[in-house]
Amino acid sequence: MVNANFTQADPLPSWNDGEVKRSIFTFVQSVVDQNGPDHVPTAARIAVFDNDGTLWAEQPLYIQLAFAFDRVKALAPEHPEWRNTQPFQAVLEGDYKALAAAGMKGVLELVTATHSGMTSDEFDRIARDWFATARHPRFNRPNTELAYQPMVELLAYLRANGFKTYIVSGGGIEFMRAISEQLYGIPPEQVIGSSGKTRYELRGGMPVIVRQPELDFFDDKEGKPLAIQKFIGRRPIAAFGNSDGDLQMLQWTATGAGRRLMLLVDHTDAEREFDYRVSPMGRLEVALQEAQQRGWTVVSMKDHWKRIFAFE
Amino acid sequence: MVNANFTQADPLPSWNDGEVKRSIFTFVQSVVDQNGPDHVPTAARIAVFDNDGTLWAEQPLYIQLAFAFDRVKALAPEHPEWRNTQPFQAVLEGDYKALAAAGMKGVLELVTATHSGMTSDEFDRIARDWFATARHPRFNRPNTELAYQPMVELLAYLRANGFKTYIVSGGGIEFMRAISEQLYGIPPEQVIGSSGKTRYELRGGMPVIVRQPELDFFDDKEGKPLAIQKFIGRRPIAAFGNSDGDLQMLQWTATGAGRRLMLLVDHTDAEREFDYRVSPMGRLEVALQEAQQRGWTVVSMKDHWKRIFAFE
Repeated sequence: MVNANFTQADPLPSWNDGEVKRSIFTFVQSVVDQNGPDHVPTAARIAVFDNDGTLWAEQPLYIQLAFAFDRVKALAPEHPEWRNTQPFQAVLEGDYKALAAAGMKGVLELVTATHSGMTSDEFDRIARDWFATARHPRFNRPNTELAYQPMVELLAYLRANGFKTYIVSGGGIEFMRAISEQLYGIPPEQVIGSSGKTRYELRGGMPVIVRQPELDFFDDKEGKPLAIQKFIGRRPIAAFGNSDGDLQMLQWTATGAGRRLMLLVDHTDAEREFDYRVSPMGRLEVALQEAQQRGWTVVSMKDHWKRIFAFE
Repeated sequence: MVNANFTQADPLPSWNDGEVKRSIFTFVQSVVDQNGPDHVPTAARIAVFDNDGTLWAEQPLYIQLAFAFDRVKALAPEHPEWRNTQPFQAVLEGDYKALAAAGMKGVLELVTATHSGMTSDEFDRIARDWFATARHPRFNRPNTELAYQPMVELLAYLRANGFKTYIVSGGGIEFMRAISEQLYGIPPEQVIGSSGKTRYELRGGMPVIVRQPELDFFDDKEGKPLAIQKFIGRRPIAAFGNSDGDLQMLQWTATGAGRRLMLLVDHTDAEREFDYRVSPMGRLEVALQEAQQRGWTVVSMKDHWKRIFAFE
């Protein structure tokens, strides 16, 4: 069973052959080709990835929100007042209607209450402990198995071609750092995300960084290019997202000089993952329209991905 | 003229032989030694450097402040009101007494007025253009020649041994990025500094990042470990500073597990550079005391550095 690819293994085996896969290969080869007109030096090969819905599943609930819910349950004995205070009561009673009513304000309240008060080292341990046992409600697997296999291959393929791969996500920066290396091969210093305020303290002469109950920066929409400029200080040449929250990051990437790759992941597969047309999440409308107008790459998970998760 | 080092060139030729130089070699070798008890994997070899007074000269005036002064002069025709508004008037008239009276508040006002209003790309061009022509008032050389040669060698030596080298400085992050690669071999994504607020805008459909006239983050004292945690997400194993503003960064570095290197540069050489006991700047008192108590390395520029600048 010899085939043409035998001597040169396909770096993207979970992607179906076709135009989308070819557009990725063409981009990378043209950027790497030292003698071509689109050559980009290694140092400038910066690629940025949204996380929720782009690198791993975000349905039926952001994984970080599942973490916050579990923390509310774990901390409830120390907070008897939560039994009749919303949105905590809703979490403790599994009352999703009351949770939905609490909206974004309620979410922020839950995240703030469960993500602050401890030191940065303590939070890292809490997050890692949670990832070691928590399971996804639909797939009944550890959340650490919810990374999209085609994107994991894409990250590795880009790095093999001299790219530096970054996460730029609305998720909490320290929460993602607890798993970014293991899931994606991305070290902590290449993770950019939302963050709370912090305080430096000496405790018995030992310095600690204490997480404060106040949002410092929300890394979404306009925040993404601003964070890219602050943390990286150069414009990416490739950007990957899945929702309108990623539009500005893709716009910012698109308007640099030279060849660029902008790619959107469209959730179209109710069977193997989720179809956002059926169960809406992470609105993808304005960005999809702009992608069609400007010729950005749109990946239909159903059509372009041979498999979605490594465990399939 | 054969000597013992002939086959293995000294990576720190501008450092005098002795205890300080030996302590650097011992630290690096013990961290690199795969079979030793102090081995640190490459990914965790993070080294952080203050900039002003640690990597380059900061007397008689922070180089960034000299830039701000020159910008005030360049922009004065568009701001006739500056002719009789402090602290601008003081800059235009070279009135250092009035400038000193304006204090830190005045400095912030000058920096804000000259560092905002333009896009991030425009600011980068302005800074690079300035560096191409501006000269240091005492040495009459481009400011880009004001890097301390022993520190440039140390940066290269650490990188040759698998370290990732970062700047963590009170200076402006984008200002430093304009020269960090050229002077220190440090890419923009490894420069951490103070920053102003920014705004994302579409101008005729083209996205730009516009610098706002408001401080976002001051990367000094407690701010340094907080910025290290936010930008890098791991604790450094080596830290280099020259003033009390670097104390918290050294404390944070010192209290991790395993072998560490904390080093302070003490300005003791009035002849070749500056003696801060004669012309005080960047107060070094509390940090020096803690260094002596805890056995951190203190470099006397006069005694430990064979030469200070490459042009000597």
